[in-house]
Order: sequence, then structure tokens, then C-alpha cells
Amino acid sequence: MTSLHFVTLVGSLRKGSYNAAIARALQGLAPAGVGVDILPSVGLLPIYDADLQAEGFPEAVTSLGAAIKAADGLIIVTPEYNYSVPGGLKNAIDWLSRLPTKPFAAKPVLIQSASMGVFGGARAQYHLRQIMVFLDGQVMNIPEVMVGQAQNKIDATTGELTDQGTRDFIAGQMKSFEAFVRKISPERH
Amino acid sequence: MTSLHFVTLVGSLRKGSYNAAIARALQGLAPAGVGVDILPSVGLLPIYDADLQAEGFPEAVTSLGAAIKAADGLIIVTPEYNYSVPGGLKNAIDWLSRLPTKPFAAKPVLIQSASMGVFGGARAQYHLRQIMVFLDGQVMNIPEVMVGQAQNKIDATTGELTDQGTRDFIAGQMKSFEAFVRKISPERH
Amino acid sequence: MTSLHFVTLVGSLRKGSYNAAIARALQGLAPAGVGVDILPSVGLLPIYDADLQAEGFPEAVTSLGAAIKAADGLIIVTPEYNYSVPGGLKNAIDWLSRLPTKPFAAKPVLIQSASMGVFGGARAQYHLRQIMVFLDGQVMNIPEVMVGQAQNKIDATTGELTDQGTRDFIAGQMKSFEAFVRKISPERH
Amino acid sequence: MTSLHFVTLVGSLRKGSYNAAIARALQGLAPAGVGVDILPSVGLLPIYDADLQAEGFPEAVTSLGAAIKAADGLIIVTPEYNYSVPGGLKNAIDWLSRLPTKPFAAKPVLIQSASMGVFGGARAQYHLRQIMVFLDGQVMNIPEVMVGQAQNKIDATTGELTDQGTRDFIAGQMKSFEAFVRKISPERH
Repeated sequence: MTSLHFVTLVGSLRKGSYNAAIARALQGLAPAGVGVDILPSVGLLPIYDADLQAEGFPEAVTSLGAAIKAADGLIIVTPEYNYSVPGGLKNAIDWLSRLPTKPFAAKPVLIQSASMGVFGGARAQYHLRQIMVFLDGQVMNIPEVMVGQAQNKIDATTGELTDQGTRDFIAGQMKSFEAFVRKISPERH
Repeated sequence: MTSLHFVTLVGSLRKGSYNAAIARALQGLAPAGVGVDILPSVGLLPIYDADLQAEGFPEAVTSLGAAIKAADGLIIVTPEYNYSVPGGLKNAIDWLSRLPTKPFAAKPVLIQSASMGVFGGARAQYHLRQIMVFLDGQVMNIPEVMVGQAQNKIDATTGELTDQGTRDFIAGQMKSFEAFVRKISPERH
Repeated sequence: MTSLHFVTLVGSLRKGSYNAAIARALQGLAPAGVGVDILPSVGLLPIYDADLQAEGFPEAVTSLGAAIKAADGLIIVTPEYNYSVPGGLKNAIDWLSRLPTKPFAAKPVLIQSASMGVFGGARAQYHLRQIMVFLDGQVMNIPEVMVGQAQNKIDATTGELTDQGTRDFIAGQMKSFEAFVRKISPERH
Repeated sequence: MTSLHFVTLVGSLRKGSYNAAIARALQGLAPAGVGVDILPSVGLLPIYDADLQAEGFPEAVTSLGAAIKAADGLIIVTPEYNYSVPGGLKNAIDWLSRLPTKPFAAKPVLIQSASMGVFGGARAQYHLRQIMVFLDGQVMNIPEVMVGQAQNKIDATTGELTDQGTRDFIAGQMKSFEAFVRKISPERH
């Protein structure tokens, strides 16, 4: 089997983000033969404006799109803001959706979320799934990773995902995702 | 009866926006005694970042929040991007939701959307409604305004909402909203 | 202040239902001057069929509709089945929605849910809220009651809601609902 | 290539149903080598009750489950009731979801809807998609078939789908679904 390359889009900008902490842990939790890179911050993009697009896509958009397009799978790791997707992440998706290369089309997508509450960002995930219908992202169904009470599972000093149960669960989900990617992208078998 | 003052938040940034055209028409369609002002663009806000917030809210956020807080009602006029709320609008809501003044709490909210397709932005509206549950915005149920095929209803040269059926329908919705505001904000009777 | 009368629609049919247990507890948790009655089971209705409706509404539908119509508020207490509203509850809503009396229109509505998982039925609540937009039910936003791990909060032998934290939280929500009803139904002040 | 066998679940019970009319048209619109059978009515099932299940699944449930399990793909054709999935269809899904055979798991699923309004049942489709996440149904993203103003596209006397544009669009969607099924169920290549 060939090796696979996944890229990670993080929905939060703050340095101590729980979701960024999970994104950093993914390479260590991925199956053998799977590489995981974290994409540049969604905070580097301007607010979407069709007039701005008419002058040419910002370089931050085209490079983000090229990285997703080239990857074997996209992992979105995001908090939930106000019962939905963070505006910054949605804004990045809005920009990317306008690229003629259609970086999400037929792309295997995995969603993870974390929050301090018990729901772990679940509500954002279902909105994200609806968004991906239009973009034809191939979002894996289950298992779903929603890390509740993230503050108890991530070391506040080191920013490391330390909770073993969560680590094992995410490792299992990534194993499922690898199989999902190989199934729906047979050229990567 | 006292007069009422509504403010309008527009989800699109482009100059020729159909939704901005509708927002500009609202003062002319409002019942007597109702004033409608358009708020500054959501494009003036940076992408939400809790680290940035820790240094103090940007002035564009606090002034937007104060205007919504002071208004008798908020009208959101927005396109649908990728089956959901535009990232820029959601980003503004994310910033505003962090203000200690809670500008959306108990605020009467009206939603309007327009698009070139037949659905008129409907999918964005239901996501927006879920967002407002958490923020305790009091979103009016019906009638819903979803302007489909907006390109045929707005003059491309003048940017004026010319379709009479749409004008009448929106005028009727605003009359219902006035009654809704007076009912749930009895101090404004 | 006049007394208020609420009715409760339960989404589950099984005898040992956690949601039925919560419904039974509501009278004891309601503020003074508020009566709460449990409506007949949604299991008494046939599957909705417009041809059947053409022969006349089943008596179980008209009597259910009359009870909701007469009440000052409707409390829906329901499990989540397959990430949405149970079919039986939705079927009852579908029948009731066809009644010329429009029992949900302008009716104050409160939603509660319980499940064995940590989410407590949250996903069903957001679908129910979207359903109520069309029917013009006035659903209170917050606080939301989602009773997770219900099996640890309800006595399996007596079917009594014993968890004090949950009892207090529901009592608080019902107090908020009483105020909400009195606000939006001023004739019941 | 082997031939494929799809089964169709219809969300409406009435004889003159627009959705049933579409379901009946599917065999004529399917690609060569694809058979389509219509499943028994969801109206034959009782309202889901875990106590009833404890006595044994009704025969109508087990036979429906076996037919879906055996099929290469499931096509759900449904109206939208009150901005969501009809209760009767959801009730069938609730029963089927309890079968130990898990008939929806890994099953390719196609959604179609029709209504008299312009939206063509769109809101029901997104709720159905969320339901299928939990059940691990593999729902094809696009193209989406939402037949608006169905009364103008179906002959009221013969119950035949006569609108050529709609017929062509559905035929195209079914061709996409055939390819989708062959891709994600490689044993059926």
C-alpha cells in the first residue's frame, strides 16, 4: 500500500487552542504510513468579498487550496462557536469554495471537535456536514470525535493531549479514516 | 405608540450585493413610525481570535454591539454561502457574542435572505436560527422572506429592489415584525 | 396573576421511558399556580395519511389538538432517535399541523429531552425547533434541558426523577417558561 | 459489470402522492442493468415502541429490513412535512435502526423529494442526511433532486411523471448514483 498524506484545518486562532492541541497530536496518533500536516491558520485570510476575488484570489487562499487539493484527506479540527461553525473557519471554506480547482470535491473529510462543555462541539459538526454536501466533500460518518471537557484532557502548560482514552479513540477514528480513504479513492490503494 | 428603531446587519461585502440592495430598501418598506439604519460592514472586523480579545475588543466590535443593543430590533439580511451562513457574518456574530453587554439577548430578530437560485438562501436561515437559540435572540417565525432569483428582482444598474411582489411581501413581513417587537418588548408599546 | 395550565407531549411509548418519568415529575417541579397535565400517548395515532384525513380526522387527533389549543403552554419531553425526533412524535405533530384550529400557532413551547448518552437528546431538539418555525410555535430559547445519562438520575424501580441537580435545573427552566408565557401571552398576565 | 438492484422507500401514504409517482418512474429512468423495486408502505408499521420490540420485531419490520439489506442501494423518495421528515418515514427508520442486521450501515443511499412549493422538500433532505450519519448510510451528495411545483410535473389523472426536464435530471442523478454505488461497494464492480 502506498503511504497517505492528510492535512489539517484548525478552526481556532488562539495559541492555547484545545483544537490546535488535538491537531498537533494527530501525527503521533496516525496509522503507520500516514503523514499529517497542519495547514496555515484560517486567520490569514481576509473576510470573503466577491469584489476582492474579482481582483484575483489572495495568495493565502490559493496556497491553502493547493495543499488541500494535493492531500489524500482533509481533517477539520474545530471548536463550536454559538452552536455552529466558527466564522473564521467558515470564511476559509467560503474562499476555498470559489477556487476553480474545487479543492473539496470528492475529497475524503474527517471532522473532529473539542470544547470545554460536555457536547464537545457536536453542533458545529452537523452544520459542517451540511456545508460539505454542496461542496461534495466525502465526510466519514462514524466514529465521530467530539472531545468534551477538553480542559481536563489537555495539559495546560505543554499543550499536549494527555488523556489516554481520548488518544486511543482518536487513533481508532484515524484508522477508520485511512480505510475510508483507501476505499473511496481506489487510486490510492 | 412610540416609534421604533431597527438596525440591519448585511451578510455580504460586495458593492453590487442583492442583500445590500434589499437592506437599502427596508426604510422605504417599513411601517410608519419605524426607522431602519444599516450597520457598518461585517468586513471591518478581524477574524475572531480569543488572544486578540484578551487585548481588548476592537472598536468596530464594541460600536456594532452598542448599536444592536440600543435598537428595538435587528434585521439580518444575508446570502447563503455553501448551504450555511457566510463566514464574515458568522464571524461578526462570534465577536458580538463575547461582549459583556450581550447584544443579542432578548433582542427581536428578523431574518431575510436573497440568492440567484430558487431557494433564496433558505438553508442559511435555519443555521442562523440555531445560532440565535444560544444567544437568546428572539427570532420571528413567519412569514419568512427568502428572495429567489434576486437578479430578476433588483435593477442591476441602480441597485434598487424593483419587483413589486417582493416589495409587498417584505413590507408585510416588516409589519408583522413591528407587532412582534411591540408584543415581546412591552416597554416599547 | 391568573393560574396557568401546561400540557405535556411525550415522545416515547415504552412504559419505563426516562422521558415519561421526567414528564411525570413536572407537576411537582412547576411554580405555584401552574398546573401540568400529561397528554395521551402519541402511539394512539395512525401513521399520517392524507387519504385518511379526507375521511375525517381521527378522534385521537382532534382531542389532542383541542387540549393543546386550550393550554397556556406546551411542553415536549422526548428522546432522540437516530439523531432526530422520534417518528411517533413527529407523526403526531404532522397530524396536529393539519387541524384547521392550528394548535401550535402562537403557542408557547418548551422542549426537554433525556437520553442515556452524554448529549441528552440535544440533536432532536434542534430538529424540533426547525419544525416549530413553520408551525409558528413560540419555543423558549434558554435554559435548555438535556438530561444526559438519564439512567443514573431516574430510579429504575419507582420511575421517579431522583437526581436533585436535575430536579432543580428543570424547576428553574419551568420558572423561566412561566415568565416567558406571561410575557408573550399578555392576556394571561 | 454486474447488474445492480435498488429499492425505494416512499415517505408518503396517500394514493395520489407525488413522491410515489416519482418512485414509480424510477425503473424507467434507471441506467441499463439497474433494477428498481418499490418497498412496502411505511404505513404498515406500528408506532415504534421498545416494549413492543421486546416481544419481537413485527414481520413488516424484518421483511423491510431484509429487502434493504439485500439491495445494492436505497432510494428514499419523500415529501417534507413541517420542515422535516414525515413522521411515518422516520418511524420506519427508527424501527429498522434497531434490527441487529443494521440495514442502513454502509448502504449507498440516494435522496429525492417533491412538493408543491418551490423548495421541493429540501428541508426534509438535510434532516434525513443527519439521521443517516448515525446509521452510517452512505448518502450521495450531489446532484440533489428536489422537485418543486410537483403538481405541474405529474399528470393528475395517470400519476405519471411527465415533465421532461425533471425526467432527464432524475435520470442523470441515477447514473451518478450507479457510479457512486460501484465505487463505494467495490464487490459490486
